[in-house]
Amino acid sequence: MELDFEKKLHRLFEDHENLVTKRNKPFRVGNGIYDRYQNPVLTAAHTPIFWRFDLDQKTNPFLMERLGINATFNSGALLWRDKYVLVVRVEGNDRKSFFAIAESPNGIDSFRFWPHPISLPETDSPDINVADMRLTEHEDGWVYGIFRTESESQNGCGIARTKDLINWDRLPNLATSFEGARDVVLHPEYVKGKYGLYLQPVDGSESGIGWGVTASMEAPKVEEETMIDARSPHTIKEIGNGQGPPPLKTSKGWLNLAYGSRQTTAGLRSVLYLFLTDLEKPWVVTHAPGGYLLAPKDTERVGDVSNTVFANGWIVNKKGGVFIYYGASDTRMHVVTSSVERLLDFALNTPEDGLRSGVSVEQRMSLINRNLAAIQSAQRSGRFDFVQ
Amino acid sequence: MELDFEKKLHRLFEDHENLVTKRNKPFRVGNGIYDRYQNPVLTAAHTPIFWRFDLDQKTNPFLMERLGINATFNSGALLWRDKYVLVVRVEGNDRKSFFAIAESPNGIDSFRFWPHPISLPETDSPDINVADMRLTEHEDGWVYGIFRTESESQNGCGIARTKDLINWDRLPNLATSFEGARDVVLHPEYVKGKYGLYLQPVDGSESGIGWGVTASMEAPKVEEETMIDARSPHTIKEIGNGQGPPPLKTSKGWLNLAYGSRQTTAGLRSVLYLFLTDLEKPWVVTHAPGGYLLAPKDTERVGDVSNTVFANGWIVNKKGGVFIYYGASDTRMHVVTSSVERLLDFALNTPEDGLRSGVSVEQRMSLINRNLAAIQSAQRSGRFDFVQ
Repeated sequence: MELDFEKKLHRLFEDHENLVTKRNKPFRVGNGIYDRYQNPVLTAAHTPIFWRFDLDQKTNPFLMERLGINATFNSGALLWRDKYVLVVRVEGNDRKSFFAIAESPNGIDSFRFWPHPISLPETDSPDINVADMRLTEHEDGWVYGIFRTESESQNGCGIARTKDLINWDRLPNLATSFEGARDVVLHPEYVKGKYGLYLQPVDGSESGIGWGVTASMEAPKVEEETMIDARSPHTIKEIGNGQGPPPLKTSKGWLNLAYGSRQTTAGLRSVLYLFLTDLEKPWVVTHAPGGYLLAPKDTERVGDVSNTVFANGWIVNKKGGVFIYYGASDTRMHVVTSSVERLLDFALNTPEDGLRSGVSVEQRMSLINRNLAAIQSAQRSGRFDFVQ
Repeated sequence: MELDFEKKLHRLFEDHENLVTKRNKPFRVGNGIYDRYQNPVLTAAHTPIFWRFDLDQKTNPFLMERLGINATFNSGALLWRDKYVLVVRVEGNDRKSFFAIAESPNGIDSFRFWPHPISLPETDSPDINVADMRLTEHEDGWVYGIFRTESESQNGCGIARTKDLINWDRLPNLATSFEGARDVVLHPEYVKGKYGLYLQPVDGSESGIGWGVTASMEAPKVEEETMIDARSPHTIKEIGNGQGPPPLKTSKGWLNLAYGSRQTTAGLRSVLYLFLTDLEKPWVVTHAPGGYLLAPKDTERVGDVSNTVFANGWIVNKKGGVFIYYGASDTRMHVVTSSVERLLDFALNTPEDGLRSGVSVEQRMSLINRNLAAIQSAQRSGRFDFVQ
């Protein structure tokens, strides 16, 4: 009996270690914009064994899971002391979510959770549930975590900050003079001496990604909102859209990653899209490539909330590599890798959504005709012989 | 760099060619009514490389997909100059659909897109989106394409016609004196000198497949509708149903393929069913086999709109073989093959829906008892020794 227990325990730890250290490889052929990987980077099974099982044979002779974990998804991200760090939304079997840090040396596999989840202080109106933390390393020296909070009194935007990712100070929830402080994201730089926030205002039938400012994060309050990117019928953001992670600063502008949803007879479908905003005025869109950047694929399509991808964290490394972390179907975390150069190329060279079928056909005809001419020309000089 | 680009390009074309020329085989055991096949006949990856990637290294140094394709589904079908031709609903990453022709020599694999999508002329109220074209080779000499169109002013039924599948004339959208001109299909023969149309009228709580006529297709207008096949609670067409492709003429009547939907907590579920109508009066159902002919199976179940199959095209070849093309979960195209003989056998010999559990049990008891008697009788004469 004693041996059995330890044998089972051994096996549990062994399997877990194999899972956590499993190498992740990109698929052979991609779309050139990013590489997709064969395995998720984090699943519920990646959470430590000692978070779930009672390891004491006296109190748990059957070696049963005492506190199951249902899912690990929608993670904020940060390059932190040369490690790829995710602040993961971990959902227990009881449907309550909390936050925990996992780190990896290379960003694509070997993510390992820190021993303890984050102890997040509460406000006077305790969070019933929390979700989808965005990490912003602000130029004021703090790392902010902005997250959705649901409490008895309101659904809103929670704010915490830290200097070591271990000890977190809780700040008051964001106050707004309008409805809809969901999917709030902190801009990483001061804008005219104030903190800039991406919001999801709802103004009658208008909704989308908005912009507001607050003078202080200790008493955060947004009184005016500007629409950055409204939802739009017959597009991938027909029914709603929201900012993903904080934008990345590039030479051509701020690179923004967002999600858009449309309705189907089988429920919402959410995809990720990209847009570029002005360096000085991050509330002004300069380039809006049409269509999605990334949609659920293969096994990503199915989960607790199927047919959705959601990203609230991405990382640029020192070589300009971009790691986009996304939750698939509210169940597990995946990554795609790209580069600032590639994503800028995508943002600058993908035609805008023409908003009707005829324009989409024109755009494609133009591409096809340029390509057919390029093929002919290449074949005249003896190249492209592999094209039929 | 040049080598890299061409190497990657070579690989793209190679993989695409392998996909397009991959042979498709039926599963070993089927239901005898039709053969299902191991692979879809068309996916987004079947669309030409030169529709999606910019092949010019100068303008696309990273060899990125410039205009992604999200899905290829819900296709009309026609036997055309001895080729199996589909008019495919192709959806770009921007969520706009357009139509394109793909053809195959055998109907079950090797579908290859024609070099250009269809340039569909617009009406004064431009189509924002188009979908689900049904092809009808009418006895007036034209090939008609009837399709769903969504425009600013209305959602309706678009009509185009062609003699070569390349040049299409646009006719006015269908006018109806009632609501619900979705899923419209043109009957292939004149009916008392008029054009017959299958419709999807909505009349208060009544809905289903309707019938109407128009004197002309240049000024198409339906003023009266007759219900052919109404939706019905507790059946596979509980929440809605609509005509699939134009019916096939057989010695026993018009063979109709339709879809039916029911509600589930995970969204709509759609299946395909069959019915037979009178040769002279195609609005009169003569045989209504109970239940579905085909439902989503295995990988077909999951996609952009999961748990749905939809067919708007089928082909009879010269040997009486029937090729049913169906979109699975609004994402990709599959085929099943059968014959006119088999489908008629199914239509004539499948009991009607008894509309309650007890009747279903009676039908099954009757089948079971006949079978048990047949087995016993066969075994007495030394046959059926494989039945335990």
